[in-house]
Amino acid sequence: MAELVSGFSKLTKEEKIEWIAFNFLKENTNAREILSLYWNSDEQLQQLHDDFIENTISNYYMPFGVAPNFVINGRLYTIPMAIEESSVVAAASLVAKFWSDKGGFKTEVINTVKVGQVHFMYEGNTSDLQSYFKFKKEDLIAATQDITKNMRKRGGGILNIELRDKTDDLENYYQLHVTFETKDSMGANFINSCLEVMAEEFKKDDIQIVMSILSNYVPNCLVKASVSCEVEKLHPTDGALFAKKMKQAVEIANVEPHRAVTHNKGVMNGIDAVVIATGNDFRAVEAGVHAYAAKSGTYKSLTSCKIEDGVFTFSIEIPLALGTVGGLTSTHPLSKLSLEMLHNPSAKELMQIVAVAGLAQNYAALRALTTTGIQEGHMKMHLVNILNQLEASAEEKEKVTVALKGQIVSYSGVAEVLEKIRA
Amino acid sequence: MAELVSGFSKLTKEEKIEWIAFNFLKENTNAREILSLYWNSDEQLQQLHDDFIENTISNYYMPFGVAPNFVINGRLYTIPMAIEESSVVAAASLVAKFWSDKGGFKTEVINTVKVGQVHFMYEGNTSDLQSYFKFKKEDLIAATQDITKNMRKRGGGILNIELRDKTDDLENYYQLHVTFETKDSMGANFINSCLEVMAEEFKKDDIQIVMSILSNYVPNCLVKASVSCEVEKLHPTDGALFAKKMKQAVEIANVEPHRAVTHNKGVMNGIDAVVIATGNDFRAVEAGVHAYAAKSGTYKSLTSCKIEDGVFTFSIEIPLALGTVGGLTSTHPLSKLSLEMLHNPSAKELMQIVAVAGLAQNYAALRALTTTGIQEGHMKMHLVNILNQLEASAEEKEKVTVALKGQIVSYSGVAEVLEKIRA
Repeated sequence: MAELVSGFSKLTKEEKIEWIAFNFLKENTNAREILSLYWNSDEQLQQLHDDFIENTISNYYMPFGVAPNFVINGRLYTIPMAIEESSVVAAASLVAKFWSDKGGFKTEVINTVKVGQVHFMYEGNTSDLQSYFKFKKEDLIAATQDITKNMRKRGGGILNIELRDKTDDLENYYQLHVTFETKDSMGANFINSCLEVMAEEFKKDDIQIVMSILSNYVPNCLVKASVSCEVEKLHPTDGALFAKKMKQAVEIANVEPHRAVTHNKGVMNGIDAVVIATGNDFRAVEAGVHAYAAKSGTYKSLTSCKIEDGVFTFSIEIPLALGTVGGLTSTHPLSKLSLEMLHNPSAKELMQIVAVAGLAQNYAALRALTTTGIQEGHMKMHLVNILNQLEASAEEKEKVTVALKGQIVSYSGVAEVLEKIRA
Repeated sequence: MAELVSGFSKLTKEEKIEWIAFNFLKENTNAREILSLYWNSDEQLQQLHDDFIENTISNYYMPFGVAPNFVINGRLYTIPMAIEESSVVAAASLVAKFWSDKGGFKTEVINTVKVGQVHFMYEGNTSDLQSYFKFKKEDLIAATQDITKNMRKRGGGILNIELRDKTDDLENYYQLHVTFETKDSMGANFINSCLEVMAEEFKKDDIQIVMSILSNYVPNCLVKASVSCEVEKLHPTDGALFAKKMKQAVEIANVEPHRAVTHNKGVMNGIDAVVIATGNDFRAVEAGVHAYAAKSGTYKSLTSCKIEDGVFTFSIEIPLALGTVGGLTSTHPLSKLSLEMLHNPSAKELMQIVAVAGLAQNYAALRALTTTGIQEGHMKMHLVNILNQLEASAEEKEKVTVALKGQIVSYSGVAEVLEKIRA
């Protein structure tokens, strides 16, 4: 039986793997080999990746693909995507091509305000605190001058500091609600550093701080993307019916949270793929986007669809706090390359590209769902994966594909057919 | 200026890269080299990864680390994590160790029901549809027999089919709300295949189907995890104060969505890292979890904290639809190895492990936030990354670290200090 380990993080990578293999992977004699098979042969490059987090033992491969033919505000893009789900890049590429000769995608950044908060408890009366804050506000700004210096040079910084009385929600609870403009950086470190300095100022006056932290809820860091064309151009035979079903699909997502969650999950397939490829933090984006979808009190669709005067318009409006400098954006070589592939965008430009990827993905999902169903496409990719897993030869792959045409693909079904072919 | 491309997906990987490099990466003469630097030297293994999605041009490295010392229901685990955020694995490891001698983590699966829906429009009157459905229900079950055969052998299958009248929400809108038990598979393909067959049955009777699709909202596929100990064991000097601040932090997240979103984002740092490492779909998990956090109409904390009779309890309850068979779980060699490292868990066991990773991460975040603040730890890792980016030698790294002790780390700050050292 394995035992607790002390000082694990101080072991070398090889020692860590040795310990894990001995204690947790005894039945797999190839464990060490598999882990090292994924190391990069360039030692310096591997060291770079090892240092990104603690206790790194290998590199988890996320497929890195590209979706070409995105026309956004008249400019052509090939969008890099890091995603393991088989259908996402293929769907993005098809939709990009489809809209490329119909005016492409139009986008607009609505706002770029980020938020951080110092949460604290104050037992005295509110008006005293308000007077104190009025007098203290300048000190708070002054205390952050060193941290904000570079950001101010770039046109960013602290936008406002507001004292918010939250005692109706929780006894003695107040907050400093601080808004920021962080330009091309996502701003997490900048915001948190500013907030912690402000909290220190408050502590000097014996105010009990609970915590100081940025918010990933950024409803005022908002971007919009849309596509639009005449209804009849949507479909070779029946554009009106197609448009109607697309609209119904969005309407359903707006009244049925069970559907809305999956609908928006499809949006996020496109969004996260670009977020990861460009070295941004997809958990931050996910949390902010889903909370935004729930802001009305009911969880709803992130995309909208309208048909007016024979014109079909499909659009998305989402909060996205992204960076194109700092963090992994320049330290991960493939993220740096992803940004180069996107014409080295500003954070505002990246917001627009990412929103387009989300909109395209939702369009693809709804198009498949309201016409052929999604299983046809999924099954095709699923079959390829199962055949690889069963180590089928190119000839066997072709035979199995023909044999299973139009059928539902399952591992056991494929294995059965392959066995017959091999016999 | 780049032009639209046709038949891109049919090009070889080398041709794709050539096209991208020529059209979008002209200014980076090393682009081809960087992309191929990330290829695996084992051609067959690389082919496997190339085939996971379309238009794969390289492998995006996500750091693959491990967090040891997790005691869950008395059993010891080392948890594999694929995550790019610097502090996540380190935080998980510390919290795992902390709780290992205090009874460890306790977990419980509450339910494992999954959901799929056939959304359709019906213009006739509701009672006719209800009569039709009553008579048709058996046909729907019968039509899915081939698909459900293997799942039924494993003890899963369709649990119930319900006709839901949603016409109050949207004119003529009804749905088949179908519940499933999918055992160790996440079940997306299984559920979607069943639903599409049911929809075909309805189409035979001229009912207008909008779409058939599983739901990623799974409030009845639920798992709970908790830790508990006497308040004084929480902290070397002041357990009571520590417990109080942890509780305040959770209370704040429950009344302030700006905080709740970030609070839950921290939970998801731990959850997604294990979800990805084990070959599961993190977008599906994210969507379901955040919608669950918003189910009351206000977006709230996923974790709870109570102090009763001198005992501190910290817990989480979240919906998680996961698989340990099918999809990438066995086709991605590192996911297969991750599952082996976790004692080849059933899907129910994996739900518990993943919930623990989320709870641990939230505990770590709140502990840091309510005591030292999170910047200290973040800055340490951030500094390492910046030093690597600036290609600092081991000696230079040490000098810079000493020089910047206690200070806020920024790229420009580090560059400045390093320049002085080098001069």
